[in-house]
Amino acid sequence: RRSHMTVSYTDPLVSMDFLRAVLQPSFNEDIMAVFRKYQKFFDKAAQNVKDNIGDDVQTDQLIKEACRNVLEHAKQLFPDPEMKRPGPEVAIKRSRPTDDDCS
Amino acid sequence: RRSHMTVSYTDPLVSMDFLRAVLQPSFNEDIMAVFRKYQKFFDKAAQNVKDNIGDDVQTDQLIKEACRNVLEHAKQLFPDPEMKRPGPEVAIKRSRPTDDDCS
Repeated sequence: RRSHMTVSYTDPLVSMDFLRAVLQPSFNEDIMAVFRKYQKFFDKAAQNVKDNIGDDVQTDQLIKEACRNVLEHAKQLFPDPEMKRPGPEVAIKRSRPTDDDCS
Repeated sequence: RRSHMTVSYTDPLVSMDFLRAVLQPSFNEDIMAVFRKYQKFFDKAAQNVKDNIGDDVQTDQLIKEACRNVLEHAKQLFPDPEMKRPGPEVAIKRSRPTDDDCS
């Protein structure tokens, strides 16, 4: 009887993720506004890479990947004590994985 | 001599990630400012979960997890065409809550 009515209200992860989903569009707008502030730097860097490496470089993909990495690293603002993994799964794998930002 | 001098300049991922690391602290500040706008909603939701479930709920951890999930989902603003995964890896892990209620 309890089973399916209450799951969504008593499971803390579900409750919190429901709120998260509701707020996500507003967050996304605000986060995009933040990224627009830095857009020109990424544009310039990606163009620079293209100039140095060649025309097969897809600058938009480079920029998107950098943006995803920014978001991944920003998670360190909200560290999970159970999971001590400082590096993102999408970052540069051969460079030093730790302590490049979280000042 | 050339070998290690040029690696960091010609590898596009390294170049872009270097810029990313330089900008990350500013991003983090801006992203925190965004989160502060929504803090009260998360506080309230987490408190609500605690009221419903019990004092062993760590509201700060619930909130941090929700914030990480926001960032994970925000990556969809910058989709990777090679990786068609719409869902985040950090979403709801517990499909069947074990329902060991604390009453």
